[in-house]
Amino acid sequence: MPHISASAGALLRHVRTGRARSRADLVALTGASRNTVSARVDQLIAANLLAEGGRGWSTGGRPPTLLQFNSRAGCVLAVDLGVTSVDVAVTDLSAQVLATVGHPIDIADGPGPVLAEVDRLAQGVLAEAGLTSADVCAVGIGVPGPVEFSTGRPSHPPIMPGWHDHPIPSAFGRYECPVFVDNDVNVMALGEMGVAGSVQDVLVVKVGTGIGCGVIVDGRVYRGAQGSAGDIGHIYVARPDGRTVICRCGNENCLEAIAGGGALLRDAVAAGLPVTSTREVVERAAQGDGIALELVRDAGRTIGTVLAALVNFFNPHRIVMTGGVAQAGVPLLAGIREAVYRRAMPLAARALEITVSDAPDLSGRVGAALMAIEGFLDEDSVHEALAR
Amino acid sequence: MPHISASAGALLRHVRTGRARSRADLVALTGASRNTVSARVDQLIAANLLAEGGRGWSTGGRPPTLLQFNSRAGCVLAVDLGVTSVDVAVTDLSAQVLATVGHPIDIADGPGPVLAEVDRLAQGVLAEAGLTSADVCAVGIGVPGPVEFSTGRPSHPPIMPGWHDHPIPSAFGRYECPVFVDNDVNVMALGEMGVAGSVQDVLVVKVGTGIGCGVIVDGRVYRGAQGSAGDIGHIYVARPDGRTVICRCGNENCLEAIAGGGALLRDAVAAGLPVTSTREVVERAAQGDGIALELVRDAGRTIGTVLAALVNFFNPHRIVMTGGVAQAGVPLLAGIREAVYRRAMPLAARALEITVSDAPDLSGRVGAALMAIEGFLDEDSVHEALAR
Repeated sequence: MPHISASAGALLRHVRTGRARSRADLVALTGASRNTVSARVDQLIAANLLAEGGRGWSTGGRPPTLLQFNSRAGCVLAVDLGVTSVDVAVTDLSAQVLATVGHPIDIADGPGPVLAEVDRLAQGVLAEAGLTSADVCAVGIGVPGPVEFSTGRPSHPPIMPGWHDHPIPSAFGRYECPVFVDNDVNVMALGEMGVAGSVQDVLVVKVGTGIGCGVIVDGRVYRGAQGSAGDIGHIYVARPDGRTVICRCGNENCLEAIAGGGALLRDAVAAGLPVTSTREVVERAAQGDGIALELVRDAGRTIGTVLAALVNFFNPHRIVMTGGVAQAGVPLLAGIREAVYRRAMPLAARALEITVSDAPDLSGRVGAALMAIEGFLDEDSVHEALAR
Repeated sequence: MPHISASAGALLRHVRTGRARSRADLVALTGASRNTVSARVDQLIAANLLAEGGRGWSTGGRPPTLLQFNSRAGCVLAVDLGVTSVDVAVTDLSAQVLATVGHPIDIADGPGPVLAEVDRLAQGVLAEAGLTSADVCAVGIGVPGPVEFSTGRPSHPPIMPGWHDHPIPSAFGRYECPVFVDNDVNVMALGEMGVAGSVQDVLVVKVGTGIGCGVIVDGRVYRGAQGSAGDIGHIYVARPDGRTVICRCGNENCLEAIAGGGALLRDAVAAGLPVTSTREVVERAAQGDGIALELVRDAGRTIGTVLAALVNFFNPHRIVMTGGVAQAGVPLLAGIREAVYRRAMPLAARALEITVSDAPDLSGRVGAALMAIEGFLDEDSVHEALAR
């Protein structure tokens, strides 16, 4: 559906993203009448979402009064739920973190105990920021598994036993606000995009135990027909040595069975390294251990062969690597770049940036906050809210 | 950029796509005021793009007057330029063909002679339809090579010698209207979508001499960072027998070097079939020749391994096969489906439709017409046109 750019929500978006700084800018940008724009801006000021103040440079007549988005008009709760830990933050409406806390959990305890813990942590961060439940405008939650976005229910999540079809939003009833749930990779992808307004096409590839990808089209999460877009961990990869690896999904030679964190640990042990976790392999690579370096680089090459195909097909502006294995940095990137430049079309590869996330720990929380903020300030929702 | 849904162009779109049938519908749909909607509808009626007439069912008060898009308010020229032939059509503003003609050309004659021929054919179809150059609202052209969409110039097209950087729109100056040029696969993809309004995610895969893909996100052509999205012909494919094929691009084992029309002919000759063109191989397969059938099916399997990866990544609603090799139909589809169902994730493959185009000959012209119509009736352009 096209967005309603002359609606109050759209006017707000233009100010938030810096495209408009005054009523005159909004009139010029949307083609709506001066009266319509003024009436809607007045509604937004009354709702405390816009503030008026200061004067811009005149280009002739009276200098225009500047409009500013009031990012302190409310707050959102951002939850980054992992397999063994959860991070909860409260942020303002520009995703600035006001307070945050992390806590170990076991996702296998199931939704009841885990979400009760999340709620306890949320009350704690709100109190720390001097806020109450009534200040919360929206809740955003990233979870480590597939989610039906429209209902916020996990859908057969392989590493979240007991969570299938659980209505996660119902645990946040006390906030009386919209609750948005998505898988962690889509949420991280939003976090990597930063504040709203970018119109780039971006792939955010998470290499942890498994491998997944957040797909951003024109600055928004692309989900596909069943919401499973970006599920690249089970793409078939031919090994140069012709060997076959069976994946936990039952298929042969899936990308994550060859180049995911679990595969890296398995290959490191087989190569004689005294390690018991993927993190140790990554740390050894960072310390310059030759065997670990070569294993990481080789994982990069394998991931790069899949990304080369996706670069030809999707022609992204950027690829951002994140997740535990991505913390290896240079050796992983070197392997990926080698394979991408060897096999992607020059036109698509020429200006492509491939980087490691600057803040992999934070992007889950920032992304969850952005998902909540975008949902809350969505053009249609603002329209409805002001109509009440 | 968000679209301006309360603009005249957006109101027109709502009526064209059937989402709104009256002024009251438009008010409800856009949230704009009754006065704003009425003023813009009056502009559109004055411009002959909307017609008012008939009465809808009343749900209480006075029955509403119905609005209709006037698809005969103008016409567009649609040009489907191939390597050895060109088809030119004139259509109304709903892409209904009013007159059409095809003619052999040689693309290697270069832009001067070829576009002069196109212009001659265009004048002919206009006359046949009882129209003149002044009736043409926009021109849409599909060409067999990469195009910089914003300028309408081919960009290093491998099979269009002499066309690099040629400003194709300048050949249509006599129509004094916008001219839109895109590569033939994107144009065919639009044609396969049919009239505007669908919001599906679709891949249209053309298997001719080469292999390319039109990517439709939410009903619109997706182009990517450099406009090269969908360039899947040079994705690396591992052959089960380990053999290596060098592609015309210089790389090894590109998809089209193994499964394109040229490869099919090469393999058929090597297998001893007395054929001199890809078309003959496809015809023999259609007639039940065992060797030709197996070759086509095997090409389908190879294409299917690439599509399986793209299904996981992109999760499309539909895949439509088109181009000369796709006319083989069932054996090609059987090979593709076998590979896709073997390797794609069940969630993404479950509801996926894979079909052969119903009207491969027509989709280039219909797509070119739709590109021109959408460009002409684009929300911003209508706004500008009415402002003049």
